[in-house]
Order: sequence, then C-alpha cells, then structure tokens
Amino acid sequence: MINKQWRLKARPTGEPSADTWDYTENAVPEIKNGQLLIKVEYISLDPAMRGWLNDSKSYIEPVQIGDVMRAGTVGEVIQSKHKDFKEGDHVCGYNGVQSYAVSDGTGLHKVDPKLAPLSYYLGVLGMPGMTGYFGLLNTGQPKSGETVVVSGAAGAVGSLVGQIARIKGCRVVGIAGGKEKCQFLVDKLGFDAAIDYKNEDVKKALKNTCPKGVDVYYDNVGGDILDDVLTQINLHARIIICGAISQYNSTKPVKGPSNYLSLLVNRARMEGIVVFDNVKEYPTAMKDIAGWIKSGEIKVKDHVVTGIETFPDTLMMLFKGQNFGKLVLKVEE
Amino acid sequence: MINKQWRLKARPTGEPSADTWDYTENAVPEIKNGQLLIKVEYISLDPAMRGWLNDSKSYIEPVQIGDVMRAGTVGEVIQSKHKDFKEGDHVCGYNGVQSYAVSDGTGLHKVDPKLAPLSYYLGVLGMPGMTGYFGLLNTGQPKSGETVVVSGAAGAVGSLVGQIARIKGCRVVGIAGGKEKCQFLVDKLGFDAAIDYKNEDVKKALKNTCPKGVDVYYDNVGGDILDDVLTQINLHARIIICGAISQYNSTKPVKGPSNYLSLLVNRARMEGIVVFDNVKEYPTAMKDIAGWIKSGEIKVKDHVVTGIETFPDTLMMLFKGQNFGKLVLKVEE
Repeated sequence: MINKQWRLKARPTGEPSADTWDYTENAVPEIKNGQLLIKVEYISLDPAMRGWLNDSKSYIEPVQIGDVMRAGTVGEVIQSKHKDFKEGDHVCGYNGVQSYAVSDGTGLHKVDPKLAPLSYYLGVLGMPGMTGYFGLLNTGQPKSGETVVVSGAAGAVGSLVGQIARIKGCRVVGIAGGKEKCQFLVDKLGFDAAIDYKNEDVKKALKNTCPKGVDVYYDNVGGDILDDVLTQINLHARIIICGAISQYNSTKPVKGPSNYLSLLVNRARMEGIVVFDNVKEYPTAMKDIAGWIKSGEIKVKDHVVTGIETFPDTLMMLFKGQNFGKLVLKVEE
Repeated sequence: MINKQWRLKARPTGEPSADTWDYTENAVPEIKNGQLLIKVEYISLDPAMRGWLNDSKSYIEPVQIGDVMRAGTVGEVIQSKHKDFKEGDHVCGYNGVQSYAVSDGTGLHKVDPKLAPLSYYLGVLGMPGMTGYFGLLNTGQPKSGETVVVSGAAGAVGSLVGQIARIKGCRVVGIAGGKEKCQFLVDKLGFDAAIDYKNEDVKKALKNTCPKGVDVYYDNVGGDILDDVLTQINLHARIIICGAISQYNSTKPVKGPSNYLSLLVNRARMEGIVVFDNVKEYPTAMKDIAGWIKSGEIKVKDHVVTGIETFPDTLMMLFKGQNFGKLVLKVEE
C-alpha cells in the first residue's frame, strides 16, 4: 500500500503556490500495539488551513516544515491494534492530507455512515457546522425578528449560519460571489435576500435588503465587506468574527475595520470565536443539525473534488471563491 | 449682563481652527415663566466634542452651524421662574460654551457644592466619571488578579478607570504621553506601571509591564496603540472602545485595528460604550466614586484653564495631549 501525502515544504508569502508543497509517496508503515490504520476517504478543505501555514502564535500550533499538512479527515479503519477501534469503523479526526493515516486514537471520534453521507462529518456535522452553530447562537444570540447578515454565505459555515438564523425567525441576508450562488441562497436555502459582492455595491445593497438595519453579522471574510456592514449595524449589534478569508493571502498588513467606531456609536460588540471551545456541547449541536437536515429545514451542499493529487489547486478554490458549498477532497474515485 | 458665547461657524476638516468658531457677545435675555437663568461657572472640555462637529449619524445629534457649542456645564441659578429650581441652586447640564444659559430645566440636575468642588461634577462625578465606571465595570468586567490596561490614562476617564481597576484588585498599567504623567500615575494614583507612548516602544513596554498578558483594555485613543495592545491580549480578553482621540482630527480614513483578528485567536471581544445608556444607574456610581474620594482611594486631578475667551485653544489641548487630568474651562476668575 502506497501512502500519498502532501507535506509543507516552505511557508508561503501571500498565496500558497507550487513551492509551498511537497508531494511524497511512501509505503504505509506497519501499525504497532495501540495503533490503528485509517484509509482516508475525504479530506476537509477549510480557509483556516491558510493560517496554519504561518509561523505565528495562534489558537493552534503552526504546521511544521516537512510535516504532512494538517486537515480534518473522515475514513475507514482498515487495521486495528487499538482496543477502542475495529476494522470497518468510520472515524473523523485531524489526520492530514494523506491517503492513509496511522493513529493512536487521539482526537478520533467514530461516525456512522448510515446516518449521513461521510462527507457531512467534515461539513455540516463537523468543524464548520459546529463553528456556525455556536458562533451564531452562543455569540450572536439572534432573536426572532432581528436581521442577520452572513458573508461567505454559500460556503460551509455561512450556508449553515443563514439557515439556522432563518429557523430562529430572523430575516436573513447572505453575501456571496456571483449570481448563481445568490440565487441558490434565496431559492434553495430560504434566505430572505442575497447580495452579490462581485457585482453589487455592498453598502447600497445592505441598505436595500436590511431596511431595519443589521442586528447580527457573522463575518467570514473581513476586508471591505466588514467595513460596509459596520455602517449599517443597529444599537447593540453583535458581530461574530469567524474568519477573514479576504485577508489570509494578503502580503500587505491586514486591513483593519476603519469603521470600527460604529461599535461605539451603536454600543455594539465584535467577538472572535474558535470552535474548539465548544467541544463539550458538540453532541447538542449535532443532534439539532441532524434533526434539521432530516426535517428538510436545512439543506446541505457539498462541493466534492476527486483526487488527492489535486490538493494544492483544490485548496486554492477556497481563496478564489470557486467553491460552492462545503469543499471536500475525495481521496480517490 | 453680557453673555459671552462660542458658536459653531463652520464644520472643520481635520483639526478645529480659528475658522471653526464664532465668538459673540449678546445681552442676556429676560427669562419667561418656566425658565431659569444659570450663571455658568465651569465648562467641560471633552474629546467627544470633536465628534459633535461632524455632520454624520452618531449617538447624538451634531451641533448645528450657528448654534452655541454643546458642552457640559456646571453653574449657579441666578434667576428662576421655574418651580423646581430656585436662586442659589447649583445645576449641571449641557448648557453650552457660554457664560449665561437660559433653561427650561430639561436635562438639568442639581449638585451640591459642599459635597465636592463644583468642577468635579464635570469630571469624576460627571460624564467622564460615569463613562469610566460603567465602561470598566459593566463592559470590561475586570476580575481580581487580572491585568487591566488603559490608554489616555492621565485624562479624565483614564485616570478614574485605572484607579477603579486597582480598587478591584487588578494589576493596572496606564498608557500616557510624557514622563511627568507616567510618574504621576504610578506615584500618586497607585498604578502598577505606566507606559510613556511618546518615548517608549509601546508593544515592548506592554510585554514588560504585562507579563501575564492583557485581560481588559480600556481604549480612549485608538490608532497604533490599540493595535499594539491587540498583540498582547489574553484568551477571552475584553476591549472597551470608549473613544479614539488619535483619529478624531485625522483627515485620512480612520485607522482600523489591523490586528483585530487577535479577537478571533483569543476569542476576545471589543465593545463600544456610550455613557447615556447607564443613566438610571448613575446614582450608584456617584455614591461609589464619592465614597472612594472620601476614603482617599481615588485621587482627582483637574486641569483648570480660566477664561471663556480661551475656548478654541483650550479645547485643542485635549488633542495635543496637553491636559493633565480632567480639562475644565473656568468661565471667569
């Protein structure tokens, strides 16, 4: 068995490029007592991965040069010398961009492929799902009748955030790139309106689509869009800082929100979230989300690209706004 | 009786200048039934006044061209045809930059010159005092043992914030301009340390003076100092946005905090405050602060400039960092 692996070769300045990655093929090692071998089926591609390439203090250690790139994965246990796992189990964990992973069980949890398609465990029932759920509900605290705006709205986190806000009785406006995505948000996911940031004046469109102002803004993108939303917030608005994908590959200093004094004028709050803080509450979230999927209240859109060989290019789709739904890499056909 | 008044002549771009103001002298009008006449004794000069000159949506209406400049004042009732006020009463209110004010009583409250020097009612027992008290305690929620950093620390709000944080058992670090102010903070007000932003590398100094990181940052200045503090915050830190004096006269776009993603990494929060929201709780705050002054736990430093004629230049002292303590204008000797 050959293990196909993508390793970090050099830390990128700006966009990751061919020089960032090393592709290696190695024999899959024998497992020892206490270990198991996972055949990775799906690899999660997430904007946060860009941050892990930087050698700076963050909420998680940077990936080290020469290491297999960190990534969330789901796969099948094909050998086990570990008391808690057996062949045929399906497991989720941070097992990296590789086709096989040896694990001692740390950080793994079992998932049931009969309850949901495996890829869902990397999306709506995985890290992005938890991020959206807790960020919106715990930090955003949307109340029925309020207006919730979400950017990156056609992405893994944003599409869930908008749908949960709708379920909670809010007016929901999504910001996404391109007509197709915007139409999907309104027609398929039940958003009240969508703003195409590539073809519309976002500030003007916010005024039109949020006539009562913005109470909650779930920000995945940062940059100019964050500044535009800041001009439209209401008293005691809550802004959830989940990410800033517009800034991750910038070689210039991060664009701070020039309009942050709107927080003062409106006694509003801007708060950062990291999903790992809610790990004890994951089961509640999973149950809620799975229930909404079952009832049809939440629709899921995965964007699956096949072939681990494509990893560098497929990852870049996130930063080019080319994914439509949760982006996952299927290791092989 | 002649009323000396400063009126808004033209909205400034950048720093207010001679062209911003009109000085007028008019006869004091006769009061009608339901009115009272106040001889203004002290006029409060506050950074927020710069914002009131802009013709933009804010937490309060802009001052209109031709109007007497808005300002907090304290003075004595010298005539009254109002049932709630009598000659000899001392009253606080927004009565503007003028030596006499006719009022129908709206927004006035009586103060006792025997309990505290009159000027205190514009500072530590007035709007800046309330701003510091509620911003720190309600929004900042400092816990004993935590590290609290405050900028504009030798000003009206900052000096109170630091002292309250000390009383609450926090390690307190003040940021101010110049050696004299810094020494005062440590020697007289009991701050644990002070950083002279004019002569020190703030980021480095924060590392040295906040070895356990920053839990609460009370920001009066914005700009680079806010960015420096953002690099040093702890998990779940709270940043209170009270003002951004470094930006108020800028003709360039406001400098947004480039390091705002530190909020994400640290699951921290940045929240704006406006003192008027706490008006019902003012009595509690007044009682607490007056008690601390009486016990000597809080020391008060007023910076009194005499002569209403000096208003334009005296106001500018705030933006040049030339005030040392709460800046008040004494109408006449």
